[in-house]
Amino acid sequence: MRYAVLGTGIVGRTITAKLTSLGHEVTIGTRDPATTLARTEPDAMGNEPFATWHSAHSDVPLRTFAEAADFGETVVNTTAGAATLDALDAAGGDALAGKVLIDITNALDFSQGMPPTLNPVNTDSLGERIQRAFPGARVVKTLNTVNCLVMVEPGRVAGAHNVFVSGDDTGAKRQVTELLISFGWPEGDIIDLGGIETARGAEMLLPLWLRLYGTLGHADFNFHIQGAR
Amino acid sequence: MRYAVLGTGIVGRTITAKLTSLGHEVTIGTRDPATTLARTEPDAMGNEPFATWHSAHSDVPLRTFAEAADFGETVVNTTAGAATLDALDAAGGDALAGKVLIDITNALDFSQGMPPTLNPVNTDSLGERIQRAFPGARVVKTLNTVNCLVMVEPGRVAGAHNVFVSGDDTGAKRQVTELLISFGWPEGDIIDLGGIETARGAEMLLPLWLRLYGTLGHADFNFHIQGAR
Repeated sequence: MRYAVLGTGIVGRTITAKLTSLGHEVTIGTRDPATTLARTEPDAMGNEPFATWHSAHSDVPLRTFAEAADFGETVVNTTAGAATLDALDAAGGDALAGKVLIDITNALDFSQGMPPTLNPVNTDSLGERIQRAFPGARVVKTLNTVNCLVMVEPGRVAGAHNVFVSGDDTGAKRQVTELLISFGWPEGDIIDLGGIETARGAEMLLPLWLRLYGTLGHADFNFHIQGAR
Repeated sequence: MRYAVLGTGIVGRTITAKLTSLGHEVTIGTRDPATTLARTEPDAMGNEPFATWHSAHSDVPLRTFAEAADFGETVVNTTAGAATLDALDAAGGDALAGKVLIDITNALDFSQGMPPTLNPVNTDSLGERIQRAFPGARVVKTLNTVNCLVMVEPGRVAGAHNVFVSGDDTGAKRQVTELLISFGWPEGDIIDLGGIETARGAEMLLPLWLRLYGTLGHADFNFHIQGAR
């Protein structure tokens, strides 16, 4: 399948590499490819500049958000939460219409210091905002509750553990479930929480995730719902 | 030890029964004992009236919040989130000073319909509010992330699963950890998240808990952090 991965950060790179390893065609979308490629400094998390990563993945085109979204039959949104609606606006509602839009974003708000808070939160979620802003897109919230390395290699965490899907479109959730299975997630560990409103629960897991990350000192962990089956 | 359990709902009753079965002396606190005992209807969740439960536990005194808090060497707060600061005000800061205050509350706000939202949330938590309002109390947030039957009988959920503690007082967290162990929680499954501010993470787990409860159709489940040890 042809995928557009929106976002050039570590999540976008990791998802892109996994999709290409599975034989999918991927185009990465960014606001301004020239600007993205011109960066020479590591990002705030210490990840290498995109250009360095891209030199080892030069078969993956870097295009504008709109060009990438036009290319993709399915769109994966890995942009930063605070910028994500702008990024999707740049991709364009027409390009997203009818397509499965996999939303991995988290509504992290760093403006109030560390650890980040969430915005939106509680009475809304990024998943819902995106679905409302792009009613033609078939939004599925998933994977936002694990580190990106675990997203594409769930076996990094020993034992059974869960990933969640939220969305209003049953067929879209079925397609995303198949993709997660191809990533290595056992089907029985994929929990369908319900409609896109349930993304609130998954997004509001982040504050606990961040504190556990601090306590454990590593990101190779995940939540397993004991008693779920 | 002498415990005051504040709140006459199903959580308070379940904790009280467990504490008495372990040989502790318990007094239950409520706003107005006569009013609590006069109720003859099941509560909103279908639980029997307190008086019915109390007739089978008549060795446990029912007193005012203030009288119970005076009695207890340790105080367990099981009151409803929206009413909890009022309840603790009634208990009185002097009665709480220097004592371990185990806070099991959730900040559930039913005023915006179902499922409930949280208030406070994100930039604050009930655990923090209680600690700020009663700086002399040694607040430990715990157990709010599981059903009350699981709180006192963790073996209802098969396999390893976790309970969290948050608080600023290391000695208080140690005492609460010992209590949790006496409830049946293996010490290795008790995760110290850090200071009372980390109660935000535990409280913000509720939206996901509530949706999983809807999806699974039962409350005998819990979160296990795979990769934590």
